[in-house]
Amino acid sequence: MPASSVSKRALRRGLILFLLGLSLAGHGAESGESLARQGAGGAPPCVTCHGADGRGNAAGGFPSLAGLDADYQAKQLHDFASGQRANPIMAPIAKALSDEQIQAVATYYAGLDAGSGQDDDAKPGESPGRDWVVNGHWQANQPACIACHGDGARGVGDQFPALAGQHAGYLEAQLKAWQSGQRKNDANAVMAAVANAMTEQQIKEVAAYLAALPAAGEVPEHARPDPAPRIADALNDYFQPPLLEYLPDNEFGASVRRGADIFRHTSSDAEAGRYVGNSQSCVNCHMNNGRQANAAPMWAAWGQYPAWRGKNHKVNTMAERLRGCFTYSQNAQASEAGQAPAADSQVIVDLMSFLFWQSKGTPTGEVLPGRGYPELDEPAQPFSPERGAALYADHCALCHGNDGQGTALTKRRYQFPPLWGDQAFNWGAGMHRVNTAAAFIHANMPLGKPGSLSVQQAWDLAAFITSQPRPQDPRFKGDLETTIKDFHGNRAMDYYGKTVNGYRLGAPGTLEQWQRDLADKP
Amino acid sequence: MPASSVSKRALRRGLILFLLGLSLAGHGAESGESLARQGAGGAPPCVTCHGADGRGNAAGGFPSLAGLDADYQAKQLHDFASGQRANPIMAPIAKALSDEQIQAVATYYAGLDAGSGQDDDAKPGESPGRDWVVNGHWQANQPACIACHGDGARGVGDQFPALAGQHAGYLEAQLKAWQSGQRKNDANAVMAAVANAMTEQQIKEVAAYLAALPAAGEVPEHARPDPAPRIADALNDYFQPPLLEYLPDNEFGASVRRGADIFRHTSSDAEAGRYVGNSQSCVNCHMNNGRQANAAPMWAAWGQYPAWRGKNHKVNTMAERLRGCFTYSQNAQASEAGQAPAADSQVIVDLMSFLFWQSKGTPTGEVLPGRGYPELDEPAQPFSPERGAALYADHCALCHGNDGQGTALTKRRYQFPPLWGDQAFNWGAGMHRVNTAAAFIHANMPLGKPGSLSVQQAWDLAAFITSQPRPQDPRFKGDLETTIKDFHGNRAMDYYGKTVNGYRLGAPGTLEQWQRDLADKP
Repeated sequence: MPASSVSKRALRRGLILFLLGLSLAGHGAESGESLARQGAGGAPPCVTCHGADGRGNAAGGFPSLAGLDADYQAKQLHDFASGQRANPIMAPIAKALSDEQIQAVATYYAGLDAGSGQDDDAKPGESPGRDWVVNGHWQANQPACIACHGDGARGVGDQFPALAGQHAGYLEAQLKAWQSGQRKNDANAVMAAVANAMTEQQIKEVAAYLAALPAAGEVPEHARPDPAPRIADALNDYFQPPLLEYLPDNEFGASVRRGADIFRHTSSDAEAGRYVGNSQSCVNCHMNNGRQANAAPMWAAWGQYPAWRGKNHKVNTMAERLRGCFTYSQNAQASEAGQAPAADSQVIVDLMSFLFWQSKGTPTGEVLPGRGYPELDEPAQPFSPERGAALYADHCALCHGNDGQGTALTKRRYQFPPLWGDQAFNWGAGMHRVNTAAAFIHANMPLGKPGSLSVQQAWDLAAFITSQPRPQDPRFKGDLETTIKDFHGNRAMDYYGKTVNGYRLGAPGTLEQWQRDLADKP
Repeated sequence: MPASSVSKRALRRGLILFLLGLSLAGHGAESGESLARQGAGGAPPCVTCHGADGRGNAAGGFPSLAGLDADYQAKQLHDFASGQRANPIMAPIAKALSDEQIQAVATYYAGLDAGSGQDDDAKPGESPGRDWVVNGHWQANQPACIACHGDGARGVGDQFPALAGQHAGYLEAQLKAWQSGQRKNDANAVMAAVANAMTEQQIKEVAAYLAALPAAGEVPEHARPDPAPRIADALNDYFQPPLLEYLPDNEFGASVRRGADIFRHTSSDAEAGRYVGNSQSCVNCHMNNGRQANAAPMWAAWGQYPAWRGKNHKVNTMAERLRGCFTYSQNAQASEAGQAPAADSQVIVDLMSFLFWQSKGTPTGEVLPGRGYPELDEPAQPFSPERGAALYADHCALCHGNDGQGTALTKRRYQFPPLWGDQAFNWGAGMHRVNTAAAFIHANMPLGKPGSLSVQQAWDLAAFITSQPRPQDPRFKGDLETTIKDFHGNRAMDYYGKTVNGYRLGAPGTLEQWQRDLADKP
């Protein structure tokens, strides 16, 4: 390590310690650093195993803590102390720490430099684990690791820790622990579902790729998702869309790639974002970049257009159908452009290139298995938003937030989409219907655990979510009753115009009232 | 027959006779009617066999002459006289008539009322011969009878006589005579090719349907072409597009039907015609309503878009590709609208519905046999516009006219399209390339006799046709050399910018000079 780098780091550390000292001085708490270096209550100091720089020790199986989210670390220490996370070494150490000490030491390690990759000899771009990490393993219904752990696997919030640059052996051991049930201290047992979908070999490969990812600096190109995976990702008995190797390296391929970017990050795309009036992206409803059977796959939709649609009383080409998604699911009326992109705009052309390319080999005009969302059986009891609210807290709030507002990375980019409110799909989107939402939920949610909810639970959840305030139906011309009559005929499956929790859904002012109520929440 | 109708007809006949008398009185010629009633030079009068009303006699096998084109009838009489058309009864009669007498009697019969159908007990809409007559029998590469004999099979010009209302027995006998070679007095031996493609049963059915068609009045609905035939029309080893029975009777089906109308009569369509700056329709290049293999069938094109095109340096959706046809092949720059219809216009949507429906079952993104025009072998000798000119006169002028100006029915509607001049495709259309035109010609021309021209002949004809003046390339921005460099790189296959017969092709003013020269022609 060059001297100048050492002295810079020393300066930075000094500054952090100084600030920590200031903040803790008032109430007599120990600094996180002194706890880390000296231990507390007879417990050995953290640095013994996790190193002076907090980056752990690969050979010993000790994880890097540097830069890990403080709340995540604090939760782990509490879990070690309570036995929720079983670990014979960490249990006595965590038990010896007070709540304040846990917070201090977690904050200390969160502030350390995570570095830029541990395994310098790895060739991450060629790693067989890459595809699972960046594209997912959708044959097993598993989204990419980065779908929850964020860009470059650098963590999202306090529930999805950074994985990039963590020691491979530690990652491997944890995946096996999730798999065996030895570790189970996550929310909703998501990691058990993920790990159970993996073979021992896959665990090794995924861990190796994650370990080789830089924990800081620019996210490398190879860690960004592809327009298509390099390994088959179709569920059994369904159409297999083309793999990456078939994507040509020419102008058409460039259009497909642009379309894939738009599809994945519609609301924050430099071009397409102008037409998005909320925080929604195509991939939210069309899982796995529109490739997943029973998640409204694009390859099953492509060959169905032009088709007449009652929704707008005309024959819709695919371009028009895509415009419909912008109009309703992406609430274009509230966008910068104020409307969906034109049928011949580059945004629509690129999306069409992407859809068309995914559809190579599908029979034109024929209905394919896996199209749309599979129709769900009727619920045993009438669906209930009240039961849905409880289920939501247990199964959905982790990602979509207690108030349905999703998990935002930036103003326009969300790791997990909002489900109601001004950033959600509007009252004209297909997803506002209870049956559509229930079918989607049952087949695809929670992420990584589709099929884990019962039919009744899916209906109840759908009822809860679709009975929340959201943006106006763009076909509303001033009169709720007329809009109901013209476009919301299926009253059994539609909360539009009904009053739920004091909100007259779809009525002028309702969404604004809901926004004020949310802002006033403690 | 009611008395009032008799007296009206008598009045009309009287007027015709009076006018004929006036016109013939000056040079002492006999009236056509007196020739018909009394004969001449010992020949028996026409009325003996063809009846007082000129409608012939079914039992005797004597054709109806009433309303038949005068020049067509005169040619038949000359051919009977010369033996070109062999007929032991008519030969001595025709020989007994002078040229003036032939013209007079032909004119007389042309002026008689053709009536409105002979076989009153026929049910023409259900006739098995209907499909061949109105849609063609493209499995045998045969266009509809009405493709040459005109709407309702009521004749086009002096080469394609009316067939509607002719006696079935006579039609049957003639088709058999064409087939056996006993009759061969048509141009280009087209009817031999047509008749040879028919079985005895088909001849009987087609004759029966034609005989039952009204010769006057509104053309009945069943005599208009369908958006698709009711019998298989695919050539062996090629994709079979859906038949009429699969066309749904709903809003989507209505869009397909509108699309079919536009495809067939683009230049004269009430909506689409606004975007057509010449007299061209889609079907001119895409035979059999876009269904015919090796004639740029729509079912092979549908699954190829979006695709990048060097022509406009962008990815083209099918909508954009269709706009390209309007821009180039249909010379939209000279149209009422001045440009191609918008990608989301009803015209494009309806065309897309029609194309999509034809393509049902084709694999998306895959190249199908029969796509486009089959690539033609190189010619043995370099292609020659001079040899092409002679071939044109022999093989093409019959339908496309001596000056390539087609056969017009109205200002906007043509039975056979112009091939050059202001009503033809422009210098940006694919058909302006020698190789494209040669491939099209060899595979599809002459109508009803595809494959009858040699490879060398097809190249020579293409060279002749594509070296004629036509509307400017819409990509021309004022400089011929720049347009050549940017868009006409394949100089070996492209006459754009070259000087042929004194015309600098594509240069400003050339088309206008050609128009003046044509107007000045004797």
